[in-house]
Amino acid sequence: MKWIRAHLGGEDDRQDGQRPTAFYALLEDDRVLPVRGDPFNGHEKTGDILRLDDVRLDVPVVPPTFYCVGLNYTKHIATEGLKIPDKPDVGYRANNALIAHGQDVVIPADATKVHYEGELVVVIGKRARNLSPADARSCVLGYTMGNDVSERNWQKSDRTFWRAKNADTFKPMGPWIETEADVENMETVVKLNGKESTRFHTNDMLFGIDTFISTMSRYLTLYPGDILWMGTDGHSPDLVDGDVVEVSLTGLGTLRNRFLRER
Amino acid sequence: MKWIRAHLGGEDDRQDGQRPTAFYALLEDDRVLPVRGDPFNGHEKTGDILRLDDVRLDVPVVPPTFYCVGLNYTKHIATEGLKIPDKPDVGYRANNALIAHGQDVVIPADATKVHYEGELVVVIGKRARNLSPADARSCVLGYTMGNDVSERNWQKSDRTFWRAKNADTFKPMGPWIETEADVENMETVVKLNGKESTRFHTNDMLFGIDTFISTMSRYLTLYPGDILWMGTDGHSPDLVDGDVVEVSLTGLGTLRNRFLRER
Repeated sequence: MKWIRAHLGGEDDRQDGQRPTAFYALLEDDRVLPVRGDPFNGHEKTGDILRLDDVRLDVPVVPPTFYCVGLNYTKHIATEGLKIPDKPDVGYRANNALIAHGQDVVIPADATKVHYEGELVVVIGKRARNLSPADARSCVLGYTMGNDVSERNWQKSDRTFWRAKNADTFKPMGPWIETEADVENMETVVKLNGKESTRFHTNDMLFGIDTFISTMSRYLTLYPGDILWMGTDGHSPDLVDGDVVEVSLTGLGTLRNRFLRER
Repeated sequence: MKWIRAHLGGEDDRQDGQRPTAFYALLEDDRVLPVRGDPFNGHEKTGDILRLDDVRLDVPVVPPTFYCVGLNYTKHIATEGLKIPDKPDVGYRANNALIAHGQDVVIPADATKVHYEGELVVVIGKRARNLSPADARSCVLGYTMGNDVSERNWQKSDRTFWRAKNADTFKPMGPWIETEADVENMETVVKLNGKESTRFHTNDMLFGIDTFISTMSRYLTLYPGDILWMGTDGHSPDLVDGDVVEVSLTGLGTLRNRFLRER
């Protein structure tokens, strides 16, 4: 089952500065079936039927808490010259940076080394605390994809990731939430301007989804809508004005975003 | 003007696992004047009048993004053996950890060194980007207080602050948002079990509110309801089961929370 969050195309141009009203819908092929409610707290179909072309996609969820696993694949850690973690310590990203499939990443005027990071995103569906590894996925609604865009020089120079990873538009996520993904047999492929530039087995993680959810839930409550980005493997070339990055994970579709230099 | 967020006392005991419905209200002495809407997107009084005793306080806002300045006072940085930052790099905390005035902080069973950190909290009221230092406060709705509870051994052993500072209940905030505080002439006082244990001039910051908001807004959009915790000075004793910590800042009231060991 595929969940999208979207708004009607004509509402893009609202003059009052407010964001257009987003709604949830089920996606069946290119048929959009809007619901009242949401995937987390209950929903019923409105009976309307739209086409995917009729709507603009929003990020599939705005999380109460935005978790992100920093270092979870050995090749990526080696390439970036970092130490392999000995336990699953989760980090954070910020909601200001989220953009949807199809929206543009803006490279800040003074950014000098911008990279992509294609990632699996776990979407929490149910409140959870103290889950065993065996029960960890009982709280998962489904999966989507993220691009953990990073400015490598700020990542080194700053004490935190506030602008290196959380500048506005640095967190593309989407296009939708897929509830029936096969994480164990998944490949992550990143294309730069249509040409494959990174490929890895998504599940080659140092610490897997079950380990993270179980460990985290020993100390914290996971809430419906929380998201957990699972880290990336490989290495990105330096991105430039006009580049188009496509992140595709088996069964999850393609998250496509253009990179534009701030003017 | 004082804004509270609250729910009716009787709703504490709901059996369906859902949180009671919170509403915003103006607080005038001990009179509670509920509103429809909120302080961020517009509001009108319902005409009801309640007493403060009739309601249970909730955290005054659940932020879209929860910013926190890690190191912003020289004495605290020296005591914790850390390096003085040379620029204002903001960090993050997590919404799962927020609790209101009067709620209990739960010390996890395996926590060994828990400290308080009394802090000024800036509440953003308006969407803002690219503010100059002179204009920085134009986006501020008001101020409240936070206790940045920290487990010092996890703070050293873990790669991130996920449980050292963001275990459930580790972020008491409140009791209300005061829109007319005089930050320049403010003192922070922390009492442990009724006895003063920390006192400092709130505005003795390495980097002030205007500097942080201006710097952050160069790279990111601040949204209504975002919060910015401004860091702490001094040193906390190790807290034990049954301790009561009160954080008071001039003009902002008192944030009181009991610490209980997990059983």
